[in-house]
Amino acid sequence: MKVDGRHFRSIWLEGDGWSVGAIDQRRLPHEFVVARITSVEQAGEAIGSMLVRGAPLIGATAAYGVALAMRADASDAALDRAHEMLIATRPTAINLKWALEEMRRTLGPLSPSARTEAAYRRAGEIAEQDVAINQAIGRHGLELIEGIAASRKPGEAVNILTHCNAGWLATVDWGTATAPIYLAHDRGIAVHVWVDETRPRNQGAALTAWELGHHGVPHTVIPDNTGGHLMQHRMVDLAIVGTDRVAANGDVCNKIGTYLKALAAHDNGVPFYVALPSPTIDFGIDDGIRQIPIEQRGAGEVTHITGRTAEGRIETVRVVPEGSPVANYGFDVTPARLVTGLITERGVLRPERAALASAFPERASALKATFDAAPFSAVSTLPPRPAR
Amino acid sequence: MKVDGRHFRSIWLEGDGWSVGAIDQRRLPHEFVVARITSVEQAGEAIGSMLVRGAPLIGATAAYGVALAMRADASDAALDRAHEMLIATRPTAINLKWALEEMRRTLGPLSPSARTEAAYRRAGEIAEQDVAINQAIGRHGLELIEGIAASRKPGEAVNILTHCNAGWLATVDWGTATAPIYLAHDRGIAVHVWVDETRPRNQGAALTAWELGHHGVPHTVIPDNTGGHLMQHRMVDLAIVGTDRVAANGDVCNKIGTYLKALAAHDNGVPFYVALPSPTIDFGIDDGIRQIPIEQRGAGEVTHITGRTAEGRIETVRVVPEGSPVANYGFDVTPARLVTGLITERGVLRPERAALASAFPERASALKATFDAAPFSAVSTLPPRPAR
Repeated sequence: MKVDGRHFRSIWLEGDGWSVGAIDQRRLPHEFVVARITSVEQAGEAIGSMLVRGAPLIGATAAYGVALAMRADASDAALDRAHEMLIATRPTAINLKWALEEMRRTLGPLSPSARTEAAYRRAGEIAEQDVAINQAIGRHGLELIEGIAASRKPGEAVNILTHCNAGWLATVDWGTATAPIYLAHDRGIAVHVWVDETRPRNQGAALTAWELGHHGVPHTVIPDNTGGHLMQHRMVDLAIVGTDRVAANGDVCNKIGTYLKALAAHDNGVPFYVALPSPTIDFGIDDGIRQIPIEQRGAGEVTHITGRTAEGRIETVRVVPEGSPVANYGFDVTPARLVTGLITERGVLRPERAALASAFPERASALKATFDAAPFSAVSTLPPRPAR
Repeated sequence: MKVDGRHFRSIWLEGDGWSVGAIDQRRLPHEFVVARITSVEQAGEAIGSMLVRGAPLIGATAAYGVALAMRADASDAALDRAHEMLIATRPTAINLKWALEEMRRTLGPLSPSARTEAAYRRAGEIAEQDVAINQAIGRHGLELIEGIAASRKPGEAVNILTHCNAGWLATVDWGTATAPIYLAHDRGIAVHVWVDETRPRNQGAALTAWELGHHGVPHTVIPDNTGGHLMQHRMVDLAIVGTDRVAANGDVCNKIGTYLKALAAHDNGVPFYVALPSPTIDFGIDDGIRQIPIEQRGAGEVTHITGRTAEGRIETVRVVPEGSPVANYGFDVTPARLVTGLITERGVLRPERAALASAFPERASALKATFDAAPFSAVSTLPPRPAR
């Protein structure tokens, strides 16, 4: 998407044809800095330090990291080393594992002399595949926005609430929840986005607001506490959020606090949509609330906040009293009954097993077959999108 | 309540018999500093600068401010000047107006020579009246906690969720939502409090956690996004919050985000109680959602956060991108259908007009009589408790 008029992706091949550019997301929203990645070590460092984050983007970065490794040394040993080093950078990111396995599957059978070119080609395909999925999600979600806009006076905005960052910065481009929003905006439909701050890591305030603002999409940052009041007073037309995992029954695991917004939407008759690439659907889980494990993260994310002082210094300050314990659950699960629809690359689906299995029969049946023979992790051929 | 073993109120008459001590709440939770107030000007400054905050505490501070004014000059002109100066410090705090009118009603008819003593006496009564109401709320709420504790194994804590600060720091002592909690804890009942951080002003993290921690009550600070997940997983036994205004139909206006917690409690069968002194009931409003105006506050509360750096400096940092608009609604309204009960000084009431009018017939009928003759503001004889 655009940053002040200039088109960017979150990661790209530089004009030299071999080095990789990426936006340094650690510096956002206060500074826009582009990093140049010239070695597999730097690619690993970019993932580990969260210079890049968001599961799809991590996968693409790892793929380019393998390409950079091959350029320096295309031996079997170097391929093993690159795989081993990169997989350890963010142990829980499933996309990382998927992208690395894709690269190994592609490069392993080739002679070393053919690997570098093939590695760059496959890394590019992985990035393009992500963009294509998000564009398809955008087209399906756009119809929902157009439906509401049709009943509006000209120029009267469709108000959309989102939580966390399921935006282009978390993917290669477009984002998932934001794809319909960018598409609508680019087509001249008046949209306005309520951006949940998204404590404790503030991805909404720091990343989603930054994205939308620099692309020119009207938006307003709100504390996470605010959405219920807005919905009660008809100030939200629909909610669109991303997800980290959708159970086969349609239960949606997403950033902590999503469930509260879904409750408010349901209580006020506001449509609540979840945008997702199909690999996020976990056909092996039938009850999201009971079966999806919820990650607990460090207390420091709650006790401390980083921002910029009036003098321009980046400072981290403590906001919780010393000695007060803190709990930090990263995600919650929204029951399917509160979800209006799942916006996937194959259309908007009802959040229930039959609809999901019918839209993605190859995944539902592959799971069945695999369950009979092998561990679940072998199933997916597209990357699931876990922790952001 | 206690601060590290020593009993404190939020405001008190010093041992010299005339100057006034108060906890400087601007410095919490990072520093515990007691301020000595020795003039009406200092009392006004304490309220205006939010050295003291919380409606009941503001009222008590203003009353002591009038006493300090009388000690310096007990003339009619001085009484007028004190009233005029103090009323302007926080124009929206209804308790402030009530306390000042009480002081004028008490002192006006007296000769100047009798005013100083009478002023200190009435100020002391205003403070004691607040304490007595909160203790009564505490006793009624305690029964609810005892009822849950009775079904527990010894030592297994009753888990209570609260939002914002309806604690002793907002009152003279005990608090409203916290009164049952302190009483239970002091009687040896194992309680554990989930403390909502309460963005954007962070009163939960900064004040409620500080209070509970220094009194020795086990507690855990959580982002506002967390409560739904906790309730879904049976980690909350009951919720108790305060309120700024309760409509005659039982709708509850309280700090923004309260509605979302009430929805989650309702969805998971968790009892949701609201603790309040009866003057908070507004018998003149029949539909809280439609009729209670919601204050919008400055963007700076959302865009900036103040805390302490590792080096001990207090710093304010910006966390929202420059140029991103912000909305900051101070309160929301929880519909009565989501409220299990209202814990008042006369018992736990159903959130509906008949129950409220039957428990407080003098207020309900006074309103009726006054509506026929005079503007609504003349009705109340005890202070309503508005914005914290």
